Amino acid sequence: MKYMAKKEAVKENKNELGVTAEKDEFSEWFTQLMIKADLADYTKVSGCIVFKPTAWAIWEKIVSLVNERIKKFGVKNVCFPLLIPESLLIREKEHLKGFTPEVAWVTEAGNTKLNERLAVRPTSEAIMYDSFSRWIRSWRDLPLKYNQWSNVIRWEFKHPTPFLRTREFVFNEGHTVYATKEEAEDERKQIIEMYNEICKDYLALPSLIGKKSDKEKFAGAVYTESLEFFMPNGKATQGPDFHFDGQNFSKAYDISFLDKDEKKQYAWQNTWAISTRMLGVMFAMHSDNKGLILPPKAAPNKIVIVPIFFDDTKENVLKKAKEIELKLKEYEPILDSRNEYNPGFKYNEWELKGIPVRIEIGPKDLEKDSCVVVRRDNNKKEIVKFKEVNKKVGEILEDIQKALFEKAKKLLDGAIVQLDSKQEMKKAIENRRIVFAPLSNNAECEDLLKFESGGAKVLNIPEEQPKNLDKSKCIVCGKKADYFAYIGKSY
Amino acid sequence: MKYMAKKEAVKENKNELGVTAEKDEFSEWFTQLMIKADLADYTKVSGCIVFKPTAWAIWEKIVSLVNERIKKFGVKNVCFPLLIPESLLIREKEHLKGFTPEVAWVTEAGNTKLNERLAVRPTSEAIMYDSFSRWIRSWRDLPLKYNQWSNVIRWEFKHPTPFLRTREFVFNEGHTVYATKEEAEDERKQIIEMYNEICKDYLALPSLIGKKSDKEKFAGAVYTESLEFFMPNGKATQGPDFHFDGQNFSKAYDISFLDKDEKKQYAWQNTWAISTRMLGVMFAMHSDNKGLILPPKAAPNKIVIVPIFFDDTKENVLKKAKEIELKLKEYEPILDSRNEYNPGFKYNEWELKGIPVRIEIGPKDLEKDSCVVVRRDNNKKEIVKFKEVNKKVGEILEDIQKALFEKAKKLLDGAIVQLDSKQEMKKAIENRRIVFAPLSNNAECEDLLKFESGGAKVLNIPEEQPKNLDKSKCIVCGKKADYFAYIGKSY
Repeated sequence: MKYMAKKEAVKENKNELGVTAEKDEFSEWFTQLMIKADLADYTKVSGCIVFKPTAWAIWEKIVSLVNERIKKFGVKNVCFPLLIPESLLIREKEHLKGFTPEVAWVTEAGNTKLNERLAVRPTSEAIMYDSFSRWIRSWRDLPLKYNQWSNVIRWEFKHPTPFLRTREFVFNEGHTVYATKEEAEDERKQIIEMYNEICKDYLALPSLIGKKSDKEKFAGAVYTESLEFFMPNGKATQGPDFHFDGQNFSKAYDISFLDKDEKKQYAWQNTWAISTRMLGVMFAMHSDNKGLILPPKAAPNKIVIVPIFFDDTKENVLKKAKEIELKLKEYEPILDSRNEYNPGFKYNEWELKGIPVRIEIGPKDLEKDSCVVVRRDNNKKEIVKFKEVNKKVGEILEDIQKALFEKAKKLLDGAIVQLDSKQEMKKAIENRRIVFAPLSNNAECEDLLKFESGGAKVLNIPEEQPKNLDKSKCIVCGKKADYFAYIGKSY
Repeated sequence: MKYMAKKEAVKENKNELGVTAEKDEFSEWFTQLMIKADLADYTKVSGCIVFKPTAWAIWEKIVSLVNERIKKFGVKNVCFPLLIPESLLIREKEHLKGFTPEVAWVTEAGNTKLNERLAVRPTSEAIMYDSFSRWIRSWRDLPLKYNQWSNVIRWEFKHPTPFLRTREFVFNEGHTVYATKEEAEDERKQIIEMYNEICKDYLALPSLIGKKSDKEKFAGAVYTESLEFFMPNGKATQGPDFHFDGQNFSKAYDISFLDKDEKKQYAWQNTWAISTRMLGVMFAMHSDNKGLILPPKAAPNKIVIVPIFFDDTKENVLKKAKEIELKLKEYEPILDSRNEYNPGFKYNEWELKGIPVRIEIGPKDLEKDSCVVVRRDNNKKEIVKFKEVNKKVGEILEDIQKALFEKAKKLLDGAIVQLDSKQEMKKAIENRRIVFAPLSNNAECEDLLKFESGGAKVLNIPEEQPKNLDKSKCIVCGKKADYFAYIGKSY
């Protein structure tokens, strides 16, 4: 929007402002949202996007929230090379299988052909653990808790969607090494709680927390625990996760140490991550046909102030608008005093861009010592006295944050159906629901499930299981079920 | 060091602790410093290092200093793709020539050969400006001020040195676009002052500020202004820089806009950067044969507290040590209460790792309500009363910061010799000095200069020129000089 000459802008203002697709035509709606709300743009590299300032500022916020928290856990940030020699990548067989189909390979530098192909990291286990094996020698070196913020390439050939499925994305890679299995597994709760707090309290996103099935776990992990999110289009998507790797990597990369009895032991490892995909989940979850809606705690600018003036009143109105801007400084307000656009155009633009609260001030408001405060999430207008604007706006922002989470929670809860037959499962999946049903821990059952449901898979398996589990049978093979699992179509 | 079982550690404590090479055998000394002070490590990717926690924490500090400042300038952070299609990279000819010899090329993804080679970005002009050309249409869209923190690959075939010359490094890329030449050039002062402030006040590094010669400027720029640093080994190294690109890129990538008269104009552009190389400059500048020395403002942990205890006194000494740790919280102190190492070993380890101030507390100190405070930079010891420790430590840290800058400034000033003959120049370069001499702005003269001096080049050209410039002749060709330039060997 903001990149248009006035004439085109006014024209577009009539016809095309806002998202013209309905939210239920999800992918067209989501794509328009990305472009028109100025969150991302396509590039000449297929499957890779530009993160524009609003989206990137929100990601930087997530980064700082994670950094603050892991620092308290004693985790230290490091930076490993982007490129990984093929010979390192192939050390851990399962890990290799999981990633090679998607690896981008550097084969030439300048005009020289390289002797060995270098992988653009799809993830950093291989390069990090080669170093860990040299750095860790004694029990004194443990625990070793490192984290890195990485841009990674996974050259998927499926249809890309901005933020949700891109060939390049950014994430944190927590890589921790412990002397004992117990210490390593104790970390799980701490990490999952951290990610859940950030998603819940800042991004206003509820999730389903549980273990992945063996078929769906991370390549190389003993088990994976994930936060799964439910999108308005009826698709689930995997968010942050925690992988307990046991000794799989420590044996493959020889990460061993001398214990206090001078005996050689293999270390126990975890990895954990949150990625830029969460931006897409948040944008998709809260927004509407008028454009972006952001939870105030995630929004870089929580307020926009739009002065309404004519030549004779401009000076006084602007003066007051600046006062309010100063008063509300903590919310990083935008004062939109552009002459070349009319207020109506500005309202639409900032609604499209998801500023949580709009403040309108015109000559009439000045006379009444008040301004008009409008919520982006439900368009409610309120007349607020200048002297109360600080307190009132603070309350409104808190209320928006709460309201968005509750709306998303209702959507999630409403989507889940517990059932115990394959027929019901198929119908429920057709109706874009999340199924909670008994299954046996068995790849064949999951393959069949996927096939017969037209692509649904096990999302995860909650720790707390229904009481009737021991009496329940797998909805696929009919044998005794190992667990109740969440099942759905997923990105 | 910290990755050793006790026995080996004690052994090494006798023989190899600290940097065994003398600082004047620079490259051996610097390499040992990197490894033993635990700042970086080599990897299986030749020319690429791991940034270990201390080094990376200092880089993160630099990042936050830059981000704070550019936000005030109205610059917004974005994130563009890592990979750049070859067809985009070749648009600006000079730019292309500058980088292609060093580009790492992705040619395969999974098992598929790509139709077009993708460059791992050596810098992001090509991919950013392709987007800018679509985003910028009207004078309303200007100025556009974006920045990105990028990891880049430049596959140099020269001998790599950790931090100072590595095939992968990280930097900020400021890319700003203006409607007029004047606005664009006005940005120069703001950016150069920002970089100079950070280098001077935080990294304690003085520099020579000036324009690059046409031969040495950035590939694609109209002119380049740089901060040049002088290292203890007599080599200069280029630090942060600012490039005025004029309309070179805007014409190559069609970054044009309609001005207020609806006339098409090409935009004016700048780019500016500071890189992880500055870490190497800072480590090299301040450190000594005992190991790392860090300016307190750059050090992640400014203090280490080493309690000296025997079994009977341990409890009381530790109690007091914890009190002091709490008192000095703002300096992120390390309390080294490990049982498995003796105090002498700990002193050496933390000196090696460059903690600016060490506090020793033993039973005798307790009796006197005092502790011993030791400076890393000059080893001066002071007995300080507990009640004064906060104030005193603050003063000492400030004094260390000042002292390190003054030492570096003296080294730089002492290295510069102004002269006006080629013979003197050659001698001075042999003696590892920086020469300030008259030159003509002429690539042939610079080639000859480089050849005859055994590799010296023009570092930069200060804005303020000697009064006798108009009477001065180029020390190479003897014709009227265009400027006095700083000349030296450089990384």
